[in-house]
Amino acid sequence: MPFTLVLGGARSGKSRHAEALIARHPAPWAYVATAEAWDDEMRDRIAAHQARRGADWRTLHAPLDLAAALGAAEARPALVDCLTLWLTNLMLGGHDVVAATAALEAALDARAAPTVLVANEVGLGIVPENALARRFRDAAGVLNQRLAARAATVHFIAAGLPLVLKGES
Amino acid sequence: MPFTLVLGGARSGKSRHAEALIARHPAPWAYVATAEAWDDEMRDRIAAHQARRGADWRTLHAPLDLAAALGAAEARPALVDCLTLWLTNLMLGGHDVVAATAALEAALDARAAPTVLVANEVGLGIVPENALARRFRDAAGVLNQRLAARAATVHFIAAGLPLVLKGES
Amino acid sequence: MPFTLVLGGARSGKSRHAEALIARHPAPWAYVATAEAWDDEMRDRIAAHQARRGADWRTLHAPLDLAAALGAAEARPALVDCLTLWLTNLMLGGHDVVAATAALEAALDARAAPTVLVANEVGLGIVPENALARRFRDAAGVLNQRLAARAATVHFIAAGLPLVLKGES
Repeated sequence: MPFTLVLGGARSGKSRHAEALIARHPAPWAYVATAEAWDDEMRDRIAAHQARRGADWRTLHAPLDLAAALGAAEARPALVDCLTLWLTNLMLGGHDVVAATAALEAALDARAAPTVLVANEVGLGIVPENALARRFRDAAGVLNQRLAARAATVHFIAAGLPLVLKGES
Repeated sequence: MPFTLVLGGARSGKSRHAEALIARHPAPWAYVATAEAWDDEMRDRIAAHQARRGADWRTLHAPLDLAAALGAAEARPALVDCLTLWLTNLMLGGHDVVAATAALEAALDARAAPTVLVANEVGLGIVPENALARRFRDAAGVLNQRLAARAATVHFIAAGLPLVLKGES
Repeated sequence: MPFTLVLGGARSGKSRHAEALIARHPAPWAYVATAEAWDDEMRDRIAAHQARRGADWRTLHAPLDLAAALGAAEARPALVDCLTLWLTNLMLGGHDVVAATAALEAALDARAAPTVLVANEVGLGIVPENALARRFRDAAGVLNQRLAARAATVHFIAAGLPLVLKGES
């Protein structure tokens, strides 16, 4: 089933927008969380996101194996939040990003229910001084391009408002 | 009276675009400046902005009390440049951002003349290494979302050219 | 002849999009490369870009004298990739950016074949801590605005997908 990609910056309202897209379909919904609680700042962010969602969401944790989580979501509409943290986890853990991306694409093709993927746009600032940050920025851009090419719908969010890059609003 | 939010990056032409929006209304206009001249670099920026504007503008300085300045602008069309520096001033001074935002919203609701707010989009680069920069980035994104939700019109500016996110061009 | 400006972030697919715009016109095409191979990372990027292009492209190297290279491209449709590296080269070499920009504009006006310019949008992240990075960010924004004002067509690329800021798709 075709999927949707929601792109945006930090605190752009992209998660909220993605939740609204999923809520167009009947509950229950699957929330596929890729965040790992490395520190207090991240734990606070995860808690704030969970508090905003209600009881209609079943949360699946998938810091690395996103393909398996999308399979486990079965016929539920699924929100993946977010691809950029998943990529961070893959890179920090020394995993094969190309193989993981191919597995994600196969899992998306196999889905029988709607899927919305959230991703950060990180390439619109000045070139980072840190070489690892530059490699990450490149990898995130390549991943976003690749999924945008396969998505039926791509929205770019700024200040909570969507621009349609591809497909429908 | 409904207000307009103009979002954009550094040197995107957002101030010039906002001035053009205000100039659709009869002069005199109020220019509400939130910048504080902390250093020479900032003094130069302020001077360059002032030199571009003509005698039809009355400048009000409001590094912190934006609500009072919007009241003082009375029936003049008012340009606020910019919300992101105002937020910086609030955070650096340890002020209550939530209370200040509520006061700004009340002042906007009370305006009897058009208002255009300029704000920076700062969340589209790589995650800053500095924790204060991350907190600021989050606060700026939340502020932009909140005002975009209340605005009648929101424009995103890139290379001097506007994209309509909401409302009219 | 009117020219096109393609703006986007790092790894946004802007080069690929610009190549597709040029390929609407008959080959052979001129590829005007502004990159200088300062280090291995940059050499790898240049090699990857060249490998993607085929034999229909004649490459001209123009780290500084873009106006001369556009003249040498003569009647071939020409892609300039990218203005932001050219600006970097000018600034690092202590050259006169204003004079170089005027020469570029004159060369664009004199072109008898289509030209597509690629540029990075770098102003949508947090303010850089480094003063040189801030100056560069300002100069890049000013250059993008100036060329966008003269361009017949301006596209903003995110995740490989174009938004039309001006002109045609």
